[in-house]
Amino acid sequence: MSKVLIFGHKSPDTDAITSAISFAYLQNKLGVEAEAVALGEVGEETSYALNYFGVEKPRVVSTVSNEVTEVMLVDHNEALQSVDDIEKVEILSVVDHHRIANFQTANPLYYRAEPVGCTQTIILKMFKEHSVKIPKDIAGLMLSAIISDTLLFKSPTCTEEDVKAAKELAEIAEVDLEKYGIELLKAGTNTKDKSADDLINADAKSFTMGEATVRVGQVNVVDVEEVLARKDELLDAMSSQSEENSYDLFVLLITDVLESNSTAVIYGEPTDKVVSAFDKTVESNTVLLEGVVSRKKQVVPQLTKAFEE
Amino acid sequence: MSKVLIFGHKSPDTDAITSAISFAYLQNKLGVEAEAVALGEVGEETSYALNYFGVEKPRVVSTVSNEVTEVMLVDHNEALQSVDDIEKVEILSVVDHHRIANFQTANPLYYRAEPVGCTQTIILKMFKEHSVKIPKDIAGLMLSAIISDTLLFKSPTCTEEDVKAAKELAEIAEVDLEKYGIELLKAGTNTKDKSADDLINADAKSFTMGEATVRVGQVNVVDVEEVLARKDELLDAMSSQSEENSYDLFVLLITDVLESNSTAVIYGEPTDKVVSAFDKTVESNTVLLEGVVSRKKQVVPQLTKAFEE
Repeated sequence: MSKVLIFGHKSPDTDAITSAISFAYLQNKLGVEAEAVALGEVGEETSYALNYFGVEKPRVVSTVSNEVTEVMLVDHNEALQSVDDIEKVEILSVVDHHRIANFQTANPLYYRAEPVGCTQTIILKMFKEHSVKIPKDIAGLMLSAIISDTLLFKSPTCTEEDVKAAKELAEIAEVDLEKYGIELLKAGTNTKDKSADDLINADAKSFTMGEATVRVGQVNVVDVEEVLARKDELLDAMSSQSEENSYDLFVLLITDVLESNSTAVIYGEPTDKVVSAFDKTVESNTVLLEGVVSRKKQVVPQLTKAFEE
Repeated sequence: MSKVLIFGHKSPDTDAITSAISFAYLQNKLGVEAEAVALGEVGEETSYALNYFGVEKPRVVSTVSNEVTEVMLVDHNEALQSVDDIEKVEILSVVDHHRIANFQTANPLYYRAEPVGCTQTIILKMFKEHSVKIPKDIAGLMLSAIISDTLLFKSPTCTEEDVKAAKELAEIAEVDLEKYGIELLKAGTNTKDKSADDLINADAKSFTMGEATVRVGQVNVVDVEEVLARKDELLDAMSSQSEENSYDLFVLLITDVLESNSTAVIYGEPTDKVVSAFDKTVESNTVLLEGVVSRKKQVVPQLTKAFEE
């Protein structure tokens, strides 16, 4: 087998980046020549984790078929969220914790998905199944992804398995789970120094819903008002991006990581789909979604249903 | 969680039937109320295995949403091969060893696929991962599926893992692997008493390839000529079925399980796709495919590529 590239989704978050790193480590131990790469620059939260555990950030690529014929995907499967030339390479393996959509292969493959809070919780199982020992720095990155994806266990996507995995990894990584967790989450909430384009794209994913292409971004903050004060600037950026990429709807979730609520900023014609998805009126392009922190569990299925009705 | 139904593909073979049974057994042990059902009557090979190990054949269903809201799929994922009302229920879990295509969910799920020769090889791993003991009769059925899918390890789809799994299961089932294997395969090769419709449908699957719907059936035999003598009758049946179900192409593989060759009988306009897929000329609606015994590995990818070019 020739070299394979392993990567998470575009606009990579901590799980996308670190799952590529931990899964590449596992594959290397299993005799596969694998390199973790990224489909975008790492954000501040991920940088914090990489620096803390002394791991270099992965190389950023925009295409893969110029380098390899085979790839492995982590933390995503949908074509819209993957590398642009995904159809030109063979997908050998997927490890993911999302819905399956707009994904197909010509050949059988390894596919491991579980409805848990974080890809790393599944990768931890795979390390155990193959009896491969996890080094301290890799454990630290895996832990960071679980903290990030579950908002330190507060997200409704978080399962008992995620909590158990995080505790186990915190021991290997030799960190205080609570203390490190809050530091990590706070590292990702700086919005002041970011442009509107950075904010709307930092953790954004595209979805096919019915006939529409819907973009859903998410910004984690401790001060929602600070971001909402820049609403007009954000809407301008969402408008340009929508035109450029033919998004029918752009939803930006501004998530209060301490209070566990989100305010959504909405751009696009099908505002009625948002209304029917959440049974809430949209005023001045915003809607408060109480208790909503998970795009995957509390936003995408509801919107998909509204678009398919 | 309310009751779930577990089933393999339409025109069920031994793997489709027995994987539903073994996976339902595992789910029951894990506290899930699950029933194995079938999307069609069992064939002679499967009957032989069920009788040998004293297990009742599963109930046949044509729809599921009238009974349950949640299902689990084994040995398939493609919508065309699944129950007609698959879109009306939620898929909680899939265990499979095929390509992924025409499959999507609104929510995250368990998906376990590996490129091995038989679904039961994966299910055996899952029994071990959950530390659930396999009873003798279930082990016998699991073994039967591996023998069936790999043609007693002769198919190119067969992996070392399948061989290892079969040996392990033969011990639990207390059978002589070689002897039982040949008896089982022979039980499925009786064609004399079958109608042309039975032969073309017994183990047939539909695939979307490019814009086309392609039906690929397979009959395992020890005497190819006996079946080829009925070619006109088979073509008539393939013609009616194609018209009724809008198949663009119908390929029937007549596979010699002892010699490991197949003769394909072809019905439909896009014969040129068969020519370009196998680089062989089709004469009098037939083509000899030397060394071809696996639909999944030696027929479907090649045809898919021809249709997508």
